Amino acid sequence: MPTQFDPPSGTRDFLAGDLLAREHVFEIIRSGFARYGFEPLQTPAFERLEVLTGKYGDEGDKLIFKILRRGEHEVSGDADLALRYDLTVPLARVAAAYGSQLPAPYKRYAIGAVWRADRPGKGRYREFVQCDLDTLGSASRLADAEIVCAVNDVLTELGIGEFTFLLNSRQALSGLLEAFGIHADLGSGALITLDKLDKLAPDEVAAELCTRGLSRETSRELVDVMTGPDAAKVVRAALENTQTGTAGLAEVDRVLQLTSGLMPPGRIVFTPRLVRGLSYYTGPIWEVVAPEMPGAIASGGRYDHLIEALGGPDVPATGGSLGIERILPLITSDAAHVALLDVAVTVMSPEYEGQAFAFAAAARGAGLRASVYLGSSGKLSRQLKWASDRGARWCLIYGGADEAAAVVTVRDMSTGDQARVPIAELPAHLRRLAQQ
Amino acid sequence: MPTQFDPPSGTRDFLAGDLLAREHVFEIIRSGFARYGFEPLQTPAFERLEVLTGKYGDEGDKLIFKILRRGEHEVSGDADLALRYDLTVPLARVAAAYGSQLPAPYKRYAIGAVWRADRPGKGRYREFVQCDLDTLGSASRLADAEIVCAVNDVLTELGIGEFTFLLNSRQALSGLLEAFGIHADLGSGALITLDKLDKLAPDEVAAELCTRGLSRETSRELVDVMTGPDAAKVVRAALENTQTGTAGLAEVDRVLQLTSGLMPPGRIVFTPRLVRGLSYYTGPIWEVVAPEMPGAIASGGRYDHLIEALGGPDVPATGGSLGIERILPLITSDAAHVALLDVAVTVMSPEYEGQAFAFAAAARGAGLRASVYLGSSGKLSRQLKWASDRGARWCLIYGGADEAAAVVTVRDMSTGDQARVPIAELPAHLRRLAQQ
Repeated sequence: MPTQFDPPSGTRDFLAGDLLAREHVFEIIRSGFARYGFEPLQTPAFERLEVLTGKYGDEGDKLIFKILRRGEHEVSGDADLALRYDLTVPLARVAAAYGSQLPAPYKRYAIGAVWRADRPGKGRYREFVQCDLDTLGSASRLADAEIVCAVNDVLTELGIGEFTFLLNSRQALSGLLEAFGIHADLGSGALITLDKLDKLAPDEVAAELCTRGLSRETSRELVDVMTGPDAAKVVRAALENTQTGTAGLAEVDRVLQLTSGLMPPGRIVFTPRLVRGLSYYTGPIWEVVAPEMPGAIASGGRYDHLIEALGGPDVPATGGSLGIERILPLITSDAAHVALLDVAVTVMSPEYEGQAFAFAAAARGAGLRASVYLGSSGKLSRQLKWASDRGARWCLIYGGADEAAAVVTVRDMSTGDQARVPIAELPAHLRRLAQQ
Repeated sequence: MPTQFDPPSGTRDFLAGDLLAREHVFEIIRSGFARYGFEPLQTPAFERLEVLTGKYGDEGDKLIFKILRRGEHEVSGDADLALRYDLTVPLARVAAAYGSQLPAPYKRYAIGAVWRADRPGKGRYREFVQCDLDTLGSASRLADAEIVCAVNDVLTELGIGEFTFLLNSRQALSGLLEAFGIHADLGSGALITLDKLDKLAPDEVAAELCTRGLSRETSRELVDVMTGPDAAKVVRAALENTQTGTAGLAEVDRVLQLTSGLMPPGRIVFTPRLVRGLSYYTGPIWEVVAPEMPGAIASGGRYDHLIEALGGPDVPATGGSLGIERILPLITSDAAHVALLDVAVTVMSPEYEGQAFAFAAAARGAGLRASVYLGSSGKLSRQLKWASDRGARWCLIYGGADEAAAVVTVRDMSTGDQARVPIAELPAHLRRLAQQ
């Protein structure tokens, strides 16, 4: 039930538990990518409107959040800026702007929000985080394999359970069309339909191929080959009959060779039916699937002319993207109840405020997170409830009896055990606790 | 010289060096605030327009970036969303939205970009980061002192050198006006002028006070008292003559008592001339100044009714803000040349690609950041230059002679020393290097 205090439709507020769980995931990703020598890039939330328009097709253009001109120009209703729609167009702009100041090749990752005025729905947001890594300026197959390995390492470290890389190549797909005698004009339509083999029944796909202009026989044969138990083997044989197909197979095999030894057996498999919808891919393409997750949780490929088409220099490029909003809910459930406090310090009476403050400082000095009670209740039970609600592991209690004996009562919040620690020994005591 | 590839006016691209230096600073701040039991909050980049308008005064309203309605409504030129202008209005909305789901008191910090359509200038951006910490729901002076201590700890840890907290109280300022017989109607104007004592000469301030309606004598006396060598002492005496002044002094003294013991002597000083421009403060107010930096590098105070005025619940509140864009340039100069790579791996010939890939994986397994050469040159000198440009500490070289002897040549990039390490021993060797 939305209220006037909800965040705007399709956006989310992240309170501490969720936010810390997300940040923990981002940190694993960042350090994983950094281990491969990728470096971070951060661009502004908005770009000049002309940098974005025309880059995402008509449908995409409609989903761009545009920003009104300011000042006296506001009344015109014109927009001159727009929120970024992805992290790839800004990358193309940066490649054009900084040129030789960037390392060659430029291996960069970016983790950042993007905004799309899509209809909000379950798991579909208007503000969401994208997580990309790309290598600009290398045509080497090593660059493709490196992206795959980096994504594999990060997904492994995130502990998402089983997953598989499906690998194919744009050239192999072209060779496939050639091998089946499908005319170039019908090729891209046929591939768009073939891409549906993971969602539709084989018969449905075959029927749609006919509507795309393929003969009944070719449609049937193509679908049978792609869905047969020996698909990879049969397609290999077919591809080896054409030059393009042979080159495509060589791409696939090179990536398999370079990556397989660094991954568990079966982690990456040649998948002839994999198309990846986007037409800009030019070389190896891949996506990552996991048993209990619909759709891909990561994907990527080589896109040698896209950066130029987006306004950047003409450099070979390869990259990948983690479907982070899809991955996150699967791994953050445990981490959501992160404790935010180690030591809670009671204030049993205003006269002990200064002392409480010093105790909390001693705890921080020992590397613990500590907070004094800021409410107005003088009741111990109330203050212990606060300590417990905050997830504190220990509570420092200091009242009249403690003052008289020059001690602090240190309560273990999980067991209820209490120790009376002389004030002078408190810092050392806290340092010992910090090592538990 | 701006080009079509520059980021929009007033915004910045952060390449790796600057970005990592900034992130390092943010991490120090986050962990510092967390040690005090503050928890993070992240809200969307934009809010519904009506949440923001009317909250920042007429001048502020003009600086809000407004987002055009989407779809068929776009032609209307209407806006329904706006980029956040600060982190306080979103906090008020969150306090209203989540109410009892939030801890009481709610101690939160937020580090995030805000956007203002200000005229860009040196050090003034349209996209910049704010860094706030606030405690909602506690009227205790402990809460005020806690904010001051947390800011002190973080500034100390950032290593920005000397700095001082200037402390005053809104009640003390009211008491001051009373003590000098300044009519309540003239009070806020007089305070705005007094606030200029750190920028204008005393005579200029006295003259401006006259134009505000104060008598020549009162203006002169007020300025003399505030700028005299014993200002704090003389003002104290004056304040003790009024009830409001006495209460204000008590606020100041309580914060001094609670914080002084936890800071070096002289770090926090009662400063009667400190006003802080913003009229919403209700209790202790403070700002942090540093010798070589113009203006305040941090500031804050108690603002007990602001959250309600901004649309949230009526809760007592106190907070502070780091002027992070002003602080950052002072501490990031060294960190800007962060090395992004530990181990560079040559690829002397395509046949060694697989081996190079495995060496890099071994380096990563040892916790080092490693990258293989992705270019097309087979020349060692070219590849060593790449390794050096990337800041690698070691370069692994593997050519024909190495292959024949089943060794890898490990070159120390700073000394040029080379060791020939048997391939089987490479992982252990790299682990030893990682510990250097």
